[in-house]
Amino acid sequence: MQLFGIKTPLIKPGDDMAGVLIESMKDAGIKPHNNDIIVLAESAVATAEGRVVRLESIRPGKKAIELSKLYETDPRKMELIIRESDELLGGIPGVVVTITKGVLSPSAGIDNSNAPEGCVVLLPENPRKSAIQLREKLMAEYGCDVAVIIGDSRTQPLRLGCVGIALGCAGIEPVEDVRGRKDLFGKPLMITRRATADNLVSAAQIIMGEADESTPAVLIRDAPVRFIEGSEDIPTISREECLYFGCFKK
Amino acid sequence: MQLFGIKTPLIKPGDDMAGVLIESMKDAGIKPHNNDIIVLAESAVATAEGRVVRLESIRPGKKAIELSKLYETDPRKMELIIRESDELLGGIPGVVVTITKGVLSPSAGIDNSNAPEGCVVLLPENPRKSAIQLREKLMAEYGCDVAVIIGDSRTQPLRLGCVGIALGCAGIEPVEDVRGRKDLFGKPLMITRRATADNLVSAAQIIMGEADESTPAVLIRDAPVRFIEGSEDIPTISREECLYFGCFKK
Repeated sequence: MQLFGIKTPLIKPGDDMAGVLIESMKDAGIKPHNNDIIVLAESAVATAEGRVVRLESIRPGKKAIELSKLYETDPRKMELIIRESDELLGGIPGVVVTITKGVLSPSAGIDNSNAPEGCVVLLPENPRKSAIQLREKLMAEYGCDVAVIIGDSRTQPLRLGCVGIALGCAGIEPVEDVRGRKDLFGKPLMITRRATADNLVSAAQIIMGEADESTPAVLIRDAPVRFIEGSEDIPTISREECLYFGCFKK
Repeated sequence: MQLFGIKTPLIKPGDDMAGVLIESMKDAGIKPHNNDIIVLAESAVATAEGRVVRLESIRPGKKAIELSKLYETDPRKMELIIRESDELLGGIPGVVVTITKGVLSPSAGIDNSNAPEGCVVLLPENPRKSAIQLREKLMAEYGCDVAVIIGDSRTQPLRLGCVGIALGCAGIEPVEDVRGRKDLFGKPLMITRRATADNLVSAAQIIMGEADESTPAVLIRDAPVRFIEGSEDIPTISREECLYFGCFKK
């Protein structure tokens, strides 16, 4: 398996993300092969989609003002978090934990970094749809099968530092069900599902960095994963089935 | 960045893990370069270290019998979980969440898969020490700098499927502190730390599989990460600092 970073110019609202990618790959001498996977940082995709919001344009409501005191957050940002999230689960000073677009997301995935001064970037409106559209454009350009993943960063429980997480994908199975398989001794497997899309994003993040590197995309070649024709939602589990949540409800 | 899977024969208790790796890389025509990183599945390392336990040799105590009813687990396995873990945090049917060797570990990381019938494999006694010793042997063999990571699988909150996690490492910075860096617009970064070792394990797991593939090791070349002389503990955070835990305490 090989990974190639794709440097791009600074992405601006209204940019054609596929066009920028195609141009940047050309400049880097990278030509996608069949079953290559392109991982894109959600912040780049969201910016191109115009999801940049000037904080001074936001008037926080009563609930946002209350919660911003509780969680020590800018009330305008809190207003955006409330608008963007499906559910607020709780928080600690500085961060509100939400479910946003079905995914557990600190601060509704709203990013102050890599946004112009005084602005924040919301998550892409529909990461799966973004992945599908980008995939179609790339496949039309290169005449071969290309998979696309829109990736973000998350912390893990009781652990320092961020790893990758997939928000939407097209052309691969996001989670591989290996329940039919046997272990080295022929017994059924205990670990039954592999979060392939998340692992691919984590692999890409080693190369992407998180900062001023302008490498918002990574091409992954020869990944031994399951390719599919269309796109599947990234599966989640309920709070009751979740080790971490189930364990602390009591 | 490139990744190469290293297939090995079935690892048995008492095997010299470094010797098996060296032999297997030779067979595969892989010769480590300077700053290559070798990710090893903890189950292989633990098996070689003799951490295989026959369940029928375990007599569960009173606490294990009680907890095994509560969490619907084999009482002998529960006894081992109690012995292995620093702390039991709670659980859901079938799984007890523990802190084991400083790491959040379902069932104390005790694995029924890839163990002989009637046996389980405990985590390596000291994964960091295992990584240091393996690294020394590999560096002596190849005369160049090689980093080693001992990796495992974990689920993420509210998400289906397993990703990689590092239990111990040597020769790289496990978490890169990028707080001094600036974003694309010159502002200080919001995401401040990268879980490099965890990301490298996730990348390796794409190739390793989790099953009867006998690929317990992956060599990663040209990873743009920070190499160090010795070994650092993998940093954790307290429950109070943790988004997920902090959020549900209340």
